[in-house]
Amino acid sequence: MAHTAQDLATFCKKKGFMYPSSEIYGGLAGFYDYGHLGTLLKRKFEQSWRDYFLGLDRNYVEIDTAQIMPEAVFKASGHLENFSDPTVHCSRCDFSDRADHLIQRAIKQRVEGLSPPEMTSLIEQRKLKCPKCAAALRPVTAFNMMFPVSLGVGTTQRAFLRPETAQSPYVNFKLQHELQRKKMPLGLALIGKAFRNEISPRNLTLRLREFTQAELQIFFNPRLISKHPSFASVKNYKLRVLLEEDRQKGLPAERTAADLVKRGLPEFYVYHLVVIQKFYFEVLKIAPSAFRFYQLDDKEKAFYNKYHFDVEVELADHGFTELGGLHYRTDHDLGGHHKISKQNLEVLDEESGEKYLPHVLELSFGVDRNVYALLDVAFDDHKQRGNIVLHLPPSLTPYLCAVFPLVKNKEELVAKAEEVDALLQKHQFRPLYDEVASIGRRYARADEIGVKYCLTVDFESLSDGAVTVRDRETTEQKRVPIAHLSEYLRTSQ
Amino acid sequence: MAHTAQDLATFCKKKGFMYPSSEIYGGLAGFYDYGHLGTLLKRKFEQSWRDYFLGLDRNYVEIDTAQIMPEAVFKASGHLENFSDPTVHCSRCDFSDRADHLIQRAIKQRVEGLSPPEMTSLIEQRKLKCPKCAAALRPVTAFNMMFPVSLGVGTTQRAFLRPETAQSPYVNFKLQHELQRKKMPLGLALIGKAFRNEISPRNLTLRLREFTQAELQIFFNPRLISKHPSFASVKNYKLRVLLEEDRQKGLPAERTAADLVKRGLPEFYVYHLVVIQKFYFEVLKIAPSAFRFYQLDDKEKAFYNKYHFDVEVELADHGFTELGGLHYRTDHDLGGHHKISKQNLEVLDEESGEKYLPHVLELSFGVDRNVYALLDVAFDDHKQRGNIVLHLPPSLTPYLCAVFPLVKNKEELVAKAEEVDALLQKHQFRPLYDEVASIGRRYARADEIGVKYCLTVDFESLSDGAVTVRDRETTEQKRVPIAHLSEYLRTSQ
Repeated sequence: MAHTAQDLATFCKKKGFMYPSSEIYGGLAGFYDYGHLGTLLKRKFEQSWRDYFLGLDRNYVEIDTAQIMPEAVFKASGHLENFSDPTVHCSRCDFSDRADHLIQRAIKQRVEGLSPPEMTSLIEQRKLKCPKCAAALRPVTAFNMMFPVSLGVGTTQRAFLRPETAQSPYVNFKLQHELQRKKMPLGLALIGKAFRNEISPRNLTLRLREFTQAELQIFFNPRLISKHPSFASVKNYKLRVLLEEDRQKGLPAERTAADLVKRGLPEFYVYHLVVIQKFYFEVLKIAPSAFRFYQLDDKEKAFYNKYHFDVEVELADHGFTELGGLHYRTDHDLGGHHKISKQNLEVLDEESGEKYLPHVLELSFGVDRNVYALLDVAFDDHKQRGNIVLHLPPSLTPYLCAVFPLVKNKEELVAKAEEVDALLQKHQFRPLYDEVASIGRRYARADEIGVKYCLTVDFESLSDGAVTVRDRETTEQKRVPIAHLSEYLRTSQ
Repeated sequence: MAHTAQDLATFCKKKGFMYPSSEIYGGLAGFYDYGHLGTLLKRKFEQSWRDYFLGLDRNYVEIDTAQIMPEAVFKASGHLENFSDPTVHCSRCDFSDRADHLIQRAIKQRVEGLSPPEMTSLIEQRKLKCPKCAAALRPVTAFNMMFPVSLGVGTTQRAFLRPETAQSPYVNFKLQHELQRKKMPLGLALIGKAFRNEISPRNLTLRLREFTQAELQIFFNPRLISKHPSFASVKNYKLRVLLEEDRQKGLPAERTAADLVKRGLPEFYVYHLVVIQKFYFEVLKIAPSAFRFYQLDDKEKAFYNKYHFDVEVELADHGFTELGGLHYRTDHDLGGHHKISKQNLEVLDEESGEKYLPHVLELSFGVDRNVYALLDVAFDDHKQRGNIVLHLPPSLTPYLCAVFPLVKNKEELVAKAEEVDALLQKHQFRPLYDEVASIGRRYARADEIGVKYCLTVDFESLSDGAVTVRDRETTEQKRVPIAHLSEYLRTSQ
């Protein structure tokens, strides 16, 4: 039952999961809004992420920070100088695009990592022209992707919408480290927006100009990178990885954590590959065959990353797609801020008595991309049922359950259904309530938005105090006493 | 035990609730970050807000939208033309300020609502000079407070960071109305950021350039404004209001909902004053004496509001301070979008068969201001205990409970404390775990961040399976069996 990316886009719009922002004005390229159902899904993803990653260690905490930051931050981080995309403009019409994308489409080869002059040569060599008007293309230039903002009136101050959430934890590190009584490693988690002036935003929420990231920045003593206290417990855990050396094969291999350490990756890094894969398998319930870590080579990875694996999930039409990454950023960021802010960001190594600049391991996830992936993986155009079924995990789906009175024009049934609804509300379930159309039609509608359990109040309910519970996955129905519903829903997830 | 605003600012920084953003670079005026504890408090405020306001009606749903919106949106809303502050610049130095603030400080009178030429005259009349260098001031000008953003490369598109979250629900109305099967009234809730280039941001999070709003926009048939189906149930509810006509008195009066209707306010509007006051009294636990609704006069209220009451809470040094408002925006916004977008935003009145443009009642709250107010109202420099006590409501405080092993160098105690911690985690409590310093010192630290219950695991716990529970408010201690802890915490809130 394969579907296309277009099927998913149509579905997301139709059901109101997500759709182009400011749509009554024709939309705005690179900006998406989440409707009611999409908002519920996004919130549940964020809460699951928080529960999982903050649950890893008592010294991992969350902060919530401003999105606009002063210029000096991006001087220190290197974004002012380096955060640019190679851009190509037509010499005649208004066409412009990312040069690497234009070249890749034309010659079907990855060219990430080439410099603008190298790309210009390639365009000349291959005689590439403007795809819109066939005129000559201008030389490739570097285009800084940050959005500048002027603060104040009169003498204005230059600031930027942050291009990644990461810089906020870095500039907060010193204070949070004091507040956490200097305990290390320290984890600072942040769920927030970041902004990039992408030249060609596309594919719904896969490449946006305004997007939400969920990141955990772990600050640690680099002396400890080759050890993780819990590594022994995961050493035989099998990771699905596509190493640089295996790329020709194209397919990920299963390798144990211990094997990756043997191949030169540090324990502390590999331990967190395990942590991430478990999140995808155990919380998001992604099928192992649709998951892989992709190791970036030196040309592909950001200049500040020493180790860099992308987290990829296979999506309709897009193939394996980056949803996150594990980045060992060394002391690149704190080093920059230490120097430019002139604040001492070093901390004390209690064992050796020496001071050191912490290194950073970044666990980074695109929330919008993950929400897209959850929908894509769950989407099932179920021919047999004649409707779409959204197989979202019970802990993530917008509505775990729905309450239906069998018919809406029988007062006793509606009253009983409202009683069930109120009872579930009281127990922190937030059921969908639907009384319109036949039960069959309501089951179909519930399937389409991923409701796991439909609870129907019928005439029998009035005498036996039970409801019919229908399961989305099996379509099986069983009677459950109203008094046991809350317990049933809690344990059946 | 009165405290000053400065006491609170010092406390917020010291405990990491909130502090100036990008502080290692000297901060950025108008931008604040929430540290770990502030983030927990902000999240709990947001969740309580959501539970309460979305719980009002099944047809009230939440959306999550882009912060950057195209220019046309603000042409339709009137922000492009009207969203400006009167600004005054010095003719010699770099001083600039809001003209109304400068005048108010000098002549101790409210001048809101005067036009720039009127303010210029007043400055000349009163011979006001630059407070920094005493030179003459330039004429007052209108300064648009939106932040423009250029999208794309080459041919760029002008857009803006939204100056209020409200426009997002308005441009989403048409689609969400379809998705909710055209049921009215429709409520669209949104918690998100908005941005204003304030000329003089100040007072921690009371006046920010980047701030979070929580808003419920209720779209309804204006024919129904003089009726609310549940009004009878609240007609004797006493509202604390300072009406325009009572302003000389300065003090709010208690007036019943029915009385306000008699004075000409519509039932639908007054009903929502009740809803809001109940939120402040019953959820946020604000003392009635510190709360009032303040009715704005024609000069003070925004030009698109027909009725406008501010929600005010009394804060140290600041007096009664605006934390939110109830705004009857009529069809100002949908009318603008209907016209500029050329999309038909009318809906069908099923009773009369006629089409109408819905009116909007806006319930608007500044999240950062409410978080500030919660901290200010809870702050208590407790002379008797010798430490600060933060009397936050149990449902809002960052940590409802803390787990302490009596001493940290006894393995059995630590193991038992970790067991208690894990048990509470499993039951969705997220206790603070603290093993450093004496129990007395830990109680004091817990008081300072508002922990309601401290659970101490002592030697007796090993034999009797119970812990000592100490209550923040009473400092009373009692033994509670570990097996009953979860139930105890749930019912003692």
